[in-house]
Amino acid sequence: MTILLTNDDGIQAYSIRQLRETLSEVSDCIVVAPESQKSASAHSISIVHDVEVRKYYLGDEFFGYQVNGTPADCVKLALCEIMKEPPGIIVSGINVGPNTGISVYYSGTVSAAREGTIAGIPSIAVSMCSFEFNDFTFANIFVKEIVKCILKEGLPSGVTLNINIPPLPREEIKGVKVTKQAHSRFVEKFVKKNNNNEVMLFSLRGEMEVVDDDSNNDEQAVKEGYISLTPLRLDLTDVSAIKDIERIVYSVKV
Amino acid sequence: MTILLTNDDGIQAYSIRQLRETLSEVSDCIVVAPESQKSASAHSISIVHDVEVRKYYLGDEFFGYQVNGTPADCVKLALCEIMKEPPGIIVSGINVGPNTGISVYYSGTVSAAREGTIAGIPSIAVSMCSFEFNDFTFANIFVKEIVKCILKEGLPSGVTLNINIPPLPREEIKGVKVTKQAHSRFVEKFVKKNNNNEVMLFSLRGEMEVVDDDSNNDEQAVKEGYISLTPLRLDLTDVSAIKDIERIVYSVKV
Repeated sequence: MTILLTNDDGIQAYSIRQLRETLSEVSDCIVVAPESQKSASAHSISIVHDVEVRKYYLGDEFFGYQVNGTPADCVKLALCEIMKEPPGIIVSGINVGPNTGISVYYSGTVSAAREGTIAGIPSIAVSMCSFEFNDFTFANIFVKEIVKCILKEGLPSGVTLNINIPPLPREEIKGVKVTKQAHSRFVEKFVKKNNNNEVMLFSLRGEMEVVDDDSNNDEQAVKEGYISLTPLRLDLTDVSAIKDIERIVYSVKV
Repeated sequence: MTILLTNDDGIQAYSIRQLRETLSEVSDCIVVAPESQKSASAHSISIVHDVEVRKYYLGDEFFGYQVNGTPADCVKLALCEIMKEPPGIIVSGINVGPNTGISVYYSGTVSAAREGTIAGIPSIAVSMCSFEFNDFTFANIFVKEIVKCILKEGLPSGVTLNINIPPLPREEIKGVKVTKQAHSRFVEKFVKKNNNNEVMLFSLRGEMEVVDDDSNNDEQAVKEGYISLTPLRLDLTDVSAIKDIERIVYSVKV
């Protein structure tokens, strides 16, 4: 049972090297990751340009495959072209920065894992909830234990496991919570860079705002020092809204 | 109540021009759309480079704003920087090609509408289920009627309405069905363009395969000649899997 390892921060990210080293204690690791930073690339795929897959070395040692595409491209290529047999699990991460709440939609890390779920392979996304905290020692050990567990037990069909780890030393982590995705949105804080009437230039910035009545959510769990595990579904249908939509649209005359 | 109009095929697409003309009969239309083709860009946003917004003219006439970013960028910029007041509705499309089943995750069209839903504005994504059929006359009229209806009735909170229109003349369209997202996946058919051991070049291709026990899905409805309307949810939590995940992970020792 090999492990497919990918991310959205790129194959040169320190976190994917560390995680590969730790996960190699469990099983063979195949790394297929973007050649550059692909944060916020969501579930985009490269259909306009061709995609190049190149062997990537650390010194003389073969490390993995770099792809000039998106995280979802990496998983598609790994499963269809690079690996001879399907992996036992796909691990996406460890991402630098949180992927809680509404971020799940923008995240390349989560999308790579979702691509694995679509293909029927148990898949997890792992994020460290800080852009500064750089001690991944405990996070790597936690991922190793989860991977061993999922290789044995599997995951429910159609479920992507989204893991968010608080930026704390091991002794300050309170435990593990299975959570819901926080109901949230980004409050945009664009930086306008000029004042031309015909052409405007912006730098996109935002801060997540949580509006959730249920405190058992991913954001809250991480804030309280728990590792958050959220099962994400593939089916986006809002079954509870079907009757409402039927009522609204059946009055439409065409 | 103004209408915000966007797409993922770019501001130069013929379909957005036609739709703007038709929707202008209902209310003022503000167009904010990508400057180029952004199919399969999903819910990606531009956080690595700055985003330029430029006024776009058809001859001497101001048509809308072109953005060198993604469909989701367009909606964020429209709501935060371009429009003085929030629109009454956001319409994304009409996309050339279907956005049924699992395509919903890859689609820039659907993601632009979802970005509107996140911001609390009734939002719809509209796709013509063909890459060849080019008579949008009836589709435009249908969208106009739906828009009038939603401006009056609203949409349930947190719901994006995903509309897929069969490529048929008006008299062959059987009616409207409120559907579920088809359980499906893409079967990849990559084209390998060279045979180098160190560097491989691929062209990404795939075909959707539907695996769904419930025939009341978007793919099936369109195949049978119905306009498909699917309510999509924002919350991705698979609540039914929480107990399973708790059982699986609480055995993890760290």
